[in-house]
Amino acid sequence: MWYEFASSYSYLAVMRAQAAADAAGVPLIWRPFLLGPVFLSLGWNDSPFNIYPPKGRYMWRDMQRLCARYGFPFRLPSQFPRSGLLAARVARLGQDQDWIGPFSRAAMQANFGEDRDIGQPEVIAEILTGLGLDADALIAEAEGEAIKQALRDQTDAATAMGLFGAPNFVVGDELFWGNDRLEDALEWAHGGGLKPTA
Amino acid sequence: MWYEFASSYSYLAVMRAQAAADAAGVPLIWRPFLLGPVFLSLGWNDSPFNIYPPKGRYMWRDMQRLCARYGFPFRLPSQFPRSGLLAARVARLGQDQDWIGPFSRAAMQANFGEDRDIGQPEVIAEILTGLGLDADALIAEAEGEAIKQALRDQTDAATAMGLFGAPNFVVGDELFWGNDRLEDALEWAHGGGLKPTA
Repeated sequence: MWYEFASSYSYLAVMRAQAAADAAGVPLIWRPFLLGPVFLSLGWNDSPFNIYPPKGRYMWRDMQRLCARYGFPFRLPSQFPRSGLLAARVARLGQDQDWIGPFSRAAMQANFGEDRDIGQPEVIAEILTGLGLDADALIAEAEGEAIKQALRDQTDAATAMGLFGAPNFVVGDELFWGNDRLEDALEWAHGGGLKPTA
Repeated sequence: MWYEFASSYSYLAVMRAQAAADAAGVPLIWRPFLLGPVFLSLGWNDSPFNIYPPKGRYMWRDMQRLCARYGFPFRLPSQFPRSGLLAARVARLGQDQDWIGPFSRAAMQANFGEDRDIGQPEVIAEILTGLGLDADALIAEAEGEAIKQALRDQTDAATAMGLFGAPNFVVGDELFWGNDRLEDALEWAHGGGLKPTA
């Protein structure tokens, strides 16, 4: 799963993915990346939800409906998009650690469920501490040159793979874009195709 | 359902909608419109699938996968988007007639399943004749000023409703965008909300 902390539909996917993958018996690999450079490569210097107001209005109503369905908290963020940079660096550092799921869910929920500014180090620190982790050490390492570069490389890899939004589910060479395609991706991972309907 | 004959994902929705609506016990109302003026209002003078190549590449692969799942024929169109203008005028004329479903499915399948140019009157005439209809009379009426204006008005109504793509499912004030949200729209029509998961 390729996701961005500033992306609204990534909130839904991040909250749902682990449980759905577990239920399907499919291993889940967490890959945070930055949508900003990807959008710039498409000619957007802001979220398309801001550039195209009807898309934005639809998206927020849809988020409200879908959070109600899934039982996820939702508060209209007072700022959108928020910087997901620090959260993405921390996630890049921990992407193969067992705390990546809990951290990602907590940071996403802070942004979209609690209207908190995840761009602030205090907010990220509080989340890490709440998970029993050494926040200061992790944030220092996440802000170090090695992780910064690793996140840049991962974002370049996302662009090279043809990603143009978030969230994404990649199964081999197959790309599924959007929270509503999580189930299709899991089905593909299971059988190498989509089950015919009817 | 608001759809456009030139729109790839509208093909899937048009093919699926009647059977899904019947199964859900929800009445289906057919509303063809033109995406061109809507896109122009967003600053696009072409399909976003052409303007943003990674989106386009993804879409065609996704169409291939989804047509295989649904059992719909698919041939990569040699021209995209094709003019859906004549098909939309005919559909506007017949939108409340019992032939609207068969006509819409046949025209969509010609475009995306058989790589035929639905912008050509002969192709539309053949489809209408195949449905046992008077093709010449219907095309003449569809090209008359009243229907041209009615389609313009319907397209303006789509923009006013905040549509920004196709297909769309509108249930009261609720908009659901995209083929993959048909089931959500039917659920909403049934119970005034989305069923909570888990």
